[in-house]
Amino acid sequence: MPSCWPLRRYGTLNLSTSGSRAPDRPVAPKTLKKLAILGSTGSIGQSTLSIVEQFPERYSVASLAAGRNVDEAFAQTVRWRPQLVSLASAELAAELAVRLRHAGVSGIRVVHGSEGAVACSTLPEADFVVSAIVGVAGLEATHAAILAGKPVGLANKECMVAAGEILTAAARERNVPILPIDSEHNAVHQCMRVGAHAEVKTIWLTASGGPFRHTPLEQFASITPEQALKHPTWVMGRRITIDSATMLNKGLEIIEACRLFDVPPGKVRVTVHPQSTVHSLVEYVDGSILAQISVTDMRLPILYALAYPERPASNLTFDLATLRHLDFEEPDFQRFPCLRLAYEAAEKGGAHCIALNAADEIAVEAFLQRRIPFTGIPDTIERVLASTPEAHPVTVAEVLAVDWEARRQAGTLVA
Amino acid sequence: MPSCWPLRRYGTLNLSTSGSRAPDRPVAPKTLKKLAILGSTGSIGQSTLSIVEQFPERYSVASLAAGRNVDEAFAQTVRWRPQLVSLASAELAAELAVRLRHAGVSGIRVVHGSEGAVACSTLPEADFVVSAIVGVAGLEATHAAILAGKPVGLANKECMVAAGEILTAAARERNVPILPIDSEHNAVHQCMRVGAHAEVKTIWLTASGGPFRHTPLEQFASITPEQALKHPTWVMGRRITIDSATMLNKGLEIIEACRLFDVPPGKVRVTVHPQSTVHSLVEYVDGSILAQISVTDMRLPILYALAYPERPASNLTFDLATLRHLDFEEPDFQRFPCLRLAYEAAEKGGAHCIALNAADEIAVEAFLQRRIPFTGIPDTIERVLASTPEAHPVTVAEVLAVDWEARRQAGTLVA
Repeated sequence: MPSCWPLRRYGTLNLSTSGSRAPDRPVAPKTLKKLAILGSTGSIGQSTLSIVEQFPERYSVASLAAGRNVDEAFAQTVRWRPQLVSLASAELAAELAVRLRHAGVSGIRVVHGSEGAVACSTLPEADFVVSAIVGVAGLEATHAAILAGKPVGLANKECMVAAGEILTAAARERNVPILPIDSEHNAVHQCMRVGAHAEVKTIWLTASGGPFRHTPLEQFASITPEQALKHPTWVMGRRITIDSATMLNKGLEIIEACRLFDVPPGKVRVTVHPQSTVHSLVEYVDGSILAQISVTDMRLPILYALAYPERPASNLTFDLATLRHLDFEEPDFQRFPCLRLAYEAAEKGGAHCIALNAADEIAVEAFLQRRIPFTGIPDTIERVLASTPEAHPVTVAEVLAVDWEARRQAGTLVA
Repeated sequence: MPSCWPLRRYGTLNLSTSGSRAPDRPVAPKTLKKLAILGSTGSIGQSTLSIVEQFPERYSVASLAAGRNVDEAFAQTVRWRPQLVSLASAELAAELAVRLRHAGVSGIRVVHGSEGAVACSTLPEADFVVSAIVGVAGLEATHAAILAGKPVGLANKECMVAAGEILTAAARERNVPILPIDSEHNAVHQCMRVGAHAEVKTIWLTASGGPFRHTPLEQFASITPEQALKHPTWVMGRRITIDSATMLNKGLEIIEACRLFDVPPGKVRVTVHPQSTVHSLVEYVDGSILAQISVTDMRLPILYALAYPERPASNLTFDLATLRHLDFEEPDFQRFPCLRLAYEAAEKGGAHCIALNAADEIAVEAFLQRRIPFTGIPDTIERVLASTPEAHPVTVAEVLAVDWEARRQAGTLVA
């Protein structure tokens, strides 16, 4: 069982023991929260900036860490005037610095590489870090943010899968909150406010089931990248869309839930809910199940994480009157072997979780390049896991070493 | 807008701002809660006693107020040995006293009438009052319990409809919690723990829609009591089953929600959900909707009210894996004019809410006796409401006077 970052108990809620009229609004004055956005040119980064735009009295931008998209990084820098911007390489950083100078924008420091991302996430002026760099690339900067005592909104599930034990230990030690931005875990976070941690019986993660819920099993080997990239409800990046089709994505979320909410894998279950309207559910020991329902728009969990424990009014409303049917089905473990592999890795923890994620990333890339069939994705993962020794890395460097070795093995297998 | 008993704000929840490992269970020692059960021989009373039976380390019985069922009151008294028992009349009380003496049961005081029920609800040894006497008959004892500073679990919605303004004012003044036992309001209470009161946009009460959701409108006039008494999902008393068929029951719940949760009628809406699995939902201003799902068993909301803020483990579990479909539809106000009448009464408050409930009780009885058709129920209520002056009674006596006058008028109309 992984060492996990716990949620506080809520036994002292005292909801109905006060009879006195409460004020209509929180009386505490709102202070501007300065954000460090890691992965600012990606989908979550852009959604975060659209929230900053919508709530200028609540949020401003302290730093932006982008990758290779200089055009977007330039536009964001001009628009949001952060103190610090980081790009993937020295060349890209130099290009951005020149373009800023030509545009007459001064006083902005431009850095690069993983040290640059760490500088962004640990900037003393930043009050809150949005961790949205895809893959383990975001791990170091996220870890550094926690070590620096910064609250983190975590959109990067690979961080929690590969290094959840390290991140949660650091968060525990420094009393730093990690708020989930993944829509499922964000829903779980909300539903867990309705009872004590020890009263949680099962965390139910909903899964769309992807495009192949009803595809005959014998056709799985001939599924093409074009077919797998058509997700029925969410518009997402390429890897996460394929992970959604294999349900490995849900497997990573099982591991993420164990770590974020400090529960064993046996307490996390998956229900296939094709409408993607119920984002997850929490079942309590007394028999009550709480569910969170909303539009499928990542701005909602981002806003929740940024504003917690407040809920600002948004235009992201869901018209319940339009709700007609909600379906829930048990997932088919034969159809989706990645789910089984994820549970096995969750039970073993440590290196197995790292290898699950790393091997999948390589296998998905190989599938997209038509080097292996769709069914080659779980096969590759299973073989990498079989040769991964049980180990529990305690530093980010050790995590990255296990990650590298799993990638190397997977690369050999798909070659 | 009614003066309502408010829920406290929860802004200080601080869910994720602690990184320290929380203990697995509440550390506070459990103390035995002594219950006063008003309406002990009814369905809610019996369910409450089954919970006492299941959790002997948590609950015991201080007093029982029953009606005319001496056999059941005798059996309950022998089994639970309360200090005090009340029956409807002096004759019934005398009969119980004799039977207890013959059975060798001593030391139990037997009282009667409304003073008897008040004695039960205000017994100094009682820690918690379950208010489950049907109709306004339970009003005086419930009001007295609040005045005596006792926390109340409220199953009697007529109390809140007829005298919500008085009860909530008293609860506010004495800082006494009122915990809803109605399954819908209990669900709302749970869902309201996930945000601040001012952040609630809409309370969605679910309604089964009763047996006539799809009956052609032209057949409504010929609906028989036998047809109306067949409720699709809940097994309940006769009046509430008919109220469910006319949806007047949901109308009373709209008014109850306004008062329990301190919201205007415009913030309470109804969604028809034939499976009766989602017991209600709360929509927040940020776009999140929280829903509570459980088995259709009243022991669950009773246990929640008794144990709040804890959740004891129960066997009332809902197998989410068996969940297949959930439907939600807009209610048809043309088919169910009682819903419109309830919203109108909720807007006017005071006497109109009292008259709505009183006129309905008389009209339902007349329908069950085949003196008026099914469509005569809303007709009678509408005519009584039309001749009810706007007024806001401030004492229980004034409430009962308005109630009496509305009954008299309804009685004349159905004669």
